[in-house]
Amino acid sequence: ELGGFVEEINNVTPEYVRSFEFDSKLMPSTWIVVRIDGCHFHRFSEIHEFVKPNDDRALNLMNLCAVAVLEKFWEDIVFAYGVSDEYSFILKKATNLYQRRANTIISAIVSFFTSTYVMRWKNFFPQSELKYPPSFDGRAVCYPSTEILRDYLSWRQVDCHINNQYNSCFWKLVASGKSKREAQNSLKGAQLQKKIEELAIDYNNLPVMYRQGSSVYRDKVDIALIHQENGEFPENYGKVIVGHIDIIGPTFWLEHPNILD
Amino acid sequence: ELGGFVEEINNVTPEYVRSFEFDSKLMPSTWIVVRIDGCHFHRFSEIHEFVKPNDDRALNLMNLCAVAVLEKFWEDIVFAYGVSDEYSFILKKATNLYQRRANTIISAIVSFFTSTYVMRWKNFFPQSELKYPPSFDGRAVCYPSTEILRDYLSWRQVDCHINNQYNSCFWKLVASGKSKREAQNSLKGAQLQKKIEELAIDYNNLPVMYRQGSSVYRDKVDIALIHQENGEFPENYGKVIVGHIDIIGPTFWLEHPNILD
Amino acid sequence: ELGGFVEEINNVTPEYVRSFEFDSKLMPSTWIVVRIDGCHFHRFSEIHEFVKPNDDRALNLMNLCAVAVLEKFWEDIVFAYGVSDEYSFILKKATNLYQRRANTIISAIVSFFTSTYVMRWKNFFPQSELKYPPSFDGRAVCYPSTEILRDYLSWRQVDCHINNQYNSCFWKLVASGKSKREAQNSLKGAQLQKKIEELAIDYNNLPVMYRQGSSVYRDKVDIALIHQENGEFPENYGKVIVGHIDIIGPTFWLEHPNILD
Amino acid sequence: ELGGFVEEINNVTPEYVRSFEFDSKLMPSTWIVVRIDGCHFHRFSEIHEFVKPNDDRALNLMNLCAVAVLEKFWEDIVFAYGVSDEYSFILKKATNLYQRRANTIISAIVSFFTSTYVMRWKNFFPQSELKYPPSFDGRAVCYPSTEILRDYLSWRQVDCHINNQYNSCFWKLVASGKSKREAQNSLKGAQLQKKIEELAIDYNNLPVMYRQGSSVYRDKVDIALIHQENGEFPENYGKVIVGHIDIIGPTFWLEHPNILD
Repeated sequence: ELGGFVEEINNVTPEYVRSFEFDSKLMPSTWIVVRIDGCHFHRFSEIHEFVKPNDDRALNLMNLCAVAVLEKFWEDIVFAYGVSDEYSFILKKATNLYQRRANTIISAIVSFFTSTYVMRWKNFFPQSELKYPPSFDGRAVCYPSTEILRDYLSWRQVDCHINNQYNSCFWKLVASGKSKREAQNSLKGAQLQKKIEELAIDYNNLPVMYRQGSSVYRDKVDIALIHQENGEFPENYGKVIVGHIDIIGPTFWLEHPNILD
Repeated sequence: ELGGFVEEINNVTPEYVRSFEFDSKLMPSTWIVVRIDGCHFHRFSEIHEFVKPNDDRALNLMNLCAVAVLEKFWEDIVFAYGVSDEYSFILKKATNLYQRRANTIISAIVSFFTSTYVMRWKNFFPQSELKYPPSFDGRAVCYPSTEILRDYLSWRQVDCHINNQYNSCFWKLVASGKSKREAQNSLKGAQLQKKIEELAIDYNNLPVMYRQGSSVYRDKVDIALIHQENGEFPENYGKVIVGHIDIIGPTFWLEHPNILD
Repeated sequence: ELGGFVEEINNVTPEYVRSFEFDSKLMPSTWIVVRIDGCHFHRFSEIHEFVKPNDDRALNLMNLCAVAVLEKFWEDIVFAYGVSDEYSFILKKATNLYQRRANTIISAIVSFFTSTYVMRWKNFFPQSELKYPPSFDGRAVCYPSTEILRDYLSWRQVDCHINNQYNSCFWKLVASGKSKREAQNSLKGAQLQKKIEELAIDYNNLPVMYRQGSSVYRDKVDIALIHQENGEFPENYGKVIVGHIDIIGPTFWLEHPNILD
Repeated sequence: ELGGFVEEINNVTPEYVRSFEFDSKLMPSTWIVVRIDGCHFHRFSEIHEFVKPNDDRALNLMNLCAVAVLEKFWEDIVFAYGVSDEYSFILKKATNLYQRRANTIISAIVSFFTSTYVMRWKNFFPQSELKYPPSFDGRAVCYPSTEILRDYLSWRQVDCHINNQYNSCFWKLVASGKSKREAQNSLKGAQLQKKIEELAIDYNNLPVMYRQGSSVYRDKVDIALIHQENGEFPENYGKVIVGHIDIIGPTFWLEHPNILD
């Protein structure tokens, strides 16, 4: 049986087959943003009965996964920002992770995030088994300056704000007895700020996590400890924390100059 | 608190930020191969005590994940080939999955595979908890003709064969009392075929899964049923099966003309 | 003066600077089409008083340049098709010209074409000096099969046909005393076939070059002679000719099987 | 004759054919360098009897072409540096020339440069006709910061310096009666600085154009005049000049802050 098989082997030329591979590399010395998004999480959140418009368990699970990503890729990822079923990871300009090959960087981060999400699901949803495997997709974008990178982060936080205003109104309307279709129509083209007042939503007292999303970073890095250990994450390198803060204004960045230094 | 934040929003211009995104698309009318690989599975397999050189539980878990991928992406993926901790998925030439955007295709497949791997782990390793989240990376390659696609698959199966010969010898040497270093040295540059005879390995009676890897495909597609249902995987569309077969020679392909038609 | 300069040299690290270069390569084993277009030739043709709608001198100069390109790149380019101020060059699937680097292939062909255009200008426009340097831009597209490549060529010839019908009507209207604006309006959305009859244009007796464009190729290649010489274009390799023929239908291709073999 | 042709037209679907085109765009907000190189200029310079190691006529022709490029693309190109048969053009970070499509930018600049080179040849080589069409290839590289852009320019000027030292020695040896092979061997691995002394070359008195290459830029831009005219190059915008200067050190850049502002 094997005879013919072994003979055939000699006709295969790996060099030719491999010449079709291409490894597009991300431009050196630019900030890399890897943004991941839940695939069809609208359906996933319904089937797993997420609380609307914001489910603390689901958001905290996302945040825990992001913390795990920053701990695993501690030499390369310096910040992450998440809202709903998306998370953006910022790789430092000088990173040489996987020689900056786009596909490898994206897939490895998406895969590790997914893996953690499934493993830790039961910690946040102890009563509810996963009914099917959740998945995320990912993309990478490069930004040549810190200024534009901050514009990116601002854009995501503005999106968080607008979506949360919309969703707060939408689900209040649904709670008041409207159908989803009616709620949607009533919000089409509406001034959200006004609607919030009309609907008597106490917006400013909603949890800050809903309004400003989640930022993940190392609060204080003890530089002295960085070079003590090799490869492994140094225990005292800087604890990864989750904050719910304004990342559009300058204050946070001025107080944490080491993050995007 | 929100005042300043809301004012800042107006300075963010999403169009500019988005102009940095690029979505490289895979050439139309070419076969797409997405190959995924376990990240640091050498360490993962040691910590989770995989049987060496081949662990049936680990291989069967990989195969189950591949079957799940073919079921989920049933309109687009027509074949998969796996060996050890890698799996190659073949998307048909005409696929328009995610508009052929490379990053989305790769990340969505890697993520779903990973998710399934973690969810089903306990079915194959009931005694052993996952000690940390496993992850996979992925890449995509296009092939412009069926001939070269088959060269690709042959290349992977040849690799399977050579690696399995090497690993069979290596672990036999280790079992006989040699250190890993000694085993490695004794195989450096050796004719594997000869070594197998010397070590009295009954190679041809090893399970065919070890020697030829795993091929995943639909054995018979009932064309009549394809167009009956919409979106959802039609129950009778064609059961996805796992075979351990020679995919280098022409026989299998002649007997399954519909796969790469 | 030089002292400081020489010292500065040591601070420059070419490897880092070069790491920003990327050479995107065109997929192996696919047909490469390089299409060049005159930059602002509308203005160029007015200033150099081209006869409208078709100037034989200008078209023959384009054709001569295309022949020169096929002679220079005789091992790689097998066919060219031109109309108006554009020309498409077909590189054979197996070409390894400049290791298939897109930028080098495009720029070298565009540059040689331009150079020939300027050098040979006086042969076709003996009375008229070039008033400023003409230029062309270029792009490359890959096609994975001969069938799609022929669709590409058909597309260009259909474009030639439609544009020529339009231009014939347009300039007939202008010749009859209408302003360009009026002529344009009168043709907006018109059935060109009908307009041609209305305007009594004897379309089928227009020179075939205007109606079908120009095809450049080797009529008969004497295979026996190909391997006699090295590098240099073998004199008897196959004379490059210009034809004005239907390249949409199968006839031409059946009669010249060696071109896209 | 046309009947069949016209019928065939309807089977061609331009959208499908065009779906194979891809227009890779250069990252926004980064410096773009387009570097062009003479194709086989070693042979070209021999056949056209360039003076060795530096031919003033050839260098001045290159410089004139670069000036023409800066005048034509006056809104986008802010600086150029040339040596031997190569020239680097710097497009400002904010340029949107051809929507930053790499292929179009490269080919249009290469083509215009080539066109000017052929048209102006006779001004510099009045006794010598072009014996065949010269051509250039081109590439584009992006740099995310002014610092790295200056590293790029320094790298090219260092190359100029080293090559000129080598060539000065080489041709001095040839002039002294050595064969080219002997000259080459005698310089292999040699300390060029030492060789220059040994060969009594008065290096520092060589024309500065040979030693530092040519820089092309606008000396003073009268900002007030920039916005007066539209599209056309404003006559008083800033005369393009050619200088032979140290571009590695900071002095030139400090004195011309507007160039890379």
